[in-house]
Amino acid sequence: MKKTNVPAATIIRLSVYQRYLKRLLAGGVKVVSSQDLASQANVNPAQLRKDLSYFGRFGVRGVGYCVSTLLQKISAILGVIEQRNVILVGAGPITQALLRHPGFPQQGYHFEAVLDVDEKNIGKTLENGMVVQPMDSLKEIVEERNVELAVIAVPLEQSQKIGDMLVEAGIKGILSFSPNRIKVPLNVSIQYIDFTILLDSLTYNISRGRKKKTTEVLEKKAQKLKWGSEHSWPVVQSNSKGYNAGLST
Amino acid sequence: MKKTNVPAATIIRLSVYQRYLKRLLAGGVKVVSSQDLASQANVNPAQLRKDLSYFGRFGVRGVGYCVSTLLQKISAILGVIEQRNVILVGAGPITQALLRHPGFPQQGYHFEAVLDVDEKNIGKTLENGMVVQPMDSLKEIVEERNVELAVIAVPLEQSQKIGDMLVEAGIKGILSFSPNRIKVPLNVSIQYIDFTILLDSLTYNISRGRKKKTTEVLEKKAQKLKWGSEHSWPVVQSNSKGYNAGLST
Repeated sequence: MKKTNVPAATIIRLSVYQRYLKRLLAGGVKVVSSQDLASQANVNPAQLRKDLSYFGRFGVRGVGYCVSTLLQKISAILGVIEQRNVILVGAGPITQALLRHPGFPQQGYHFEAVLDVDEKNIGKTLENGMVVQPMDSLKEIVEERNVELAVIAVPLEQSQKIGDMLVEAGIKGILSFSPNRIKVPLNVSIQYIDFTILLDSLTYNISRGRKKKTTEVLEKKAQKLKWGSEHSWPVVQSNSKGYNAGLST
Repeated sequence: MKKTNVPAATIIRLSVYQRYLKRLLAGGVKVVSSQDLASQANVNPAQLRKDLSYFGRFGVRGVGYCVSTLLQKISAILGVIEQRNVILVGAGPITQALLRHPGFPQQGYHFEAVLDVDEKNIGKTLENGMVVQPMDSLKEIVEERNVELAVIAVPLEQSQKIGDMLVEAGIKGILSFSPNRIKVPLNVSIQYIDFTILLDSLTYNISRGRKKKTTEVLEKKAQKLKWGSEHSWPVVQSNSKGYNAGLST
């Protein structure tokens, strides 16, 4: 295994490949072409090969990849083979949605506990039968149940405090739904999800597409005046490339 | 305004800057340093300046940026000044969480309607008083209420069909919570959110950090044997850089 720093975008794409391979395996497919696999992450086969090259040599030229072998290897790279325990902090609607999301158990993520700082939520029984626990129980839960991952879904003004408590308790990876950045030590990883930021990107693409279209109409008119010929209408290329579920620079 | 293709990562960071500027403005702060603003997106001031340089010249060297001016300009670039109408497809727990999320109205996103293909959800009244509508109403809603953005939160096997219906009705930007890729025409933008993929990235960082630590322990032992000296314990740098709420290549 090479020692190069692997780009965060590559890791995201490995997850995309891994999920597609799982679906293929479940469907009884034995071999997948690099074209097909690459298209799942909206990249070309060269990028797929580059993504895999960080970790060794895979596949056979002109034949493709063995679905089950590649699935095993990517899962091993990601470290997502065994069950991983996760705790949720904040007993609000996002947590409720996550608890009901089929993707987590499918990918080996198991929600161990839901905690909250809010007195009025503590002791509440959630839909799936879990009881919301106070932050006092944090350290015990993390240690006893071997938890390294936590999800923060609390109001913005509480997120840093919760982050500090999680780090103190030994959590190593945090997924935060709070829009503000949390300061964590260098040995703790953090990912942010902000739904509205993704809508902003779509909005930007839409207004860019509209501007482009206007420019094209004007250019077309100018060309008509100049040459009096018809040009085929160019497709506005405002489609976003690459996989978008979270990423870094 | 330059015509260069702006990287998707820059657009994501513009949203991060914009949200921070909004908070500063609300707090009565007039000027922000490039250091402070850049740190919000986990980049250095040079990257911040590069991000802004795609759209013109901003700020005064040694002084910083005027909060209200920069906020206005970035909002204009993103096209997020006015209210933007959004429809939600799928009346499940994710939709319920989004409807209760304060970030959307704060950023000018207004949920116009919730639609569903599932007969048993149609006609249901949601917490906020909205009634779930059938897909038959899609075209009318999109046209009459000037909707360009849609969120898809339906089971995996329905997402392509829903995507086709949205495109047909005139939707130009789609945010999908379904893990599988949807085929859309080039003039339609799409962003994906997959929570478990972000957990995979955290898992990868954790196991990489652990490997690094083991290697370092072994190297340290080897060094001790060789030179008999103590070395300070290096901090494991597995912290993820950059803003992570969705991004492209």
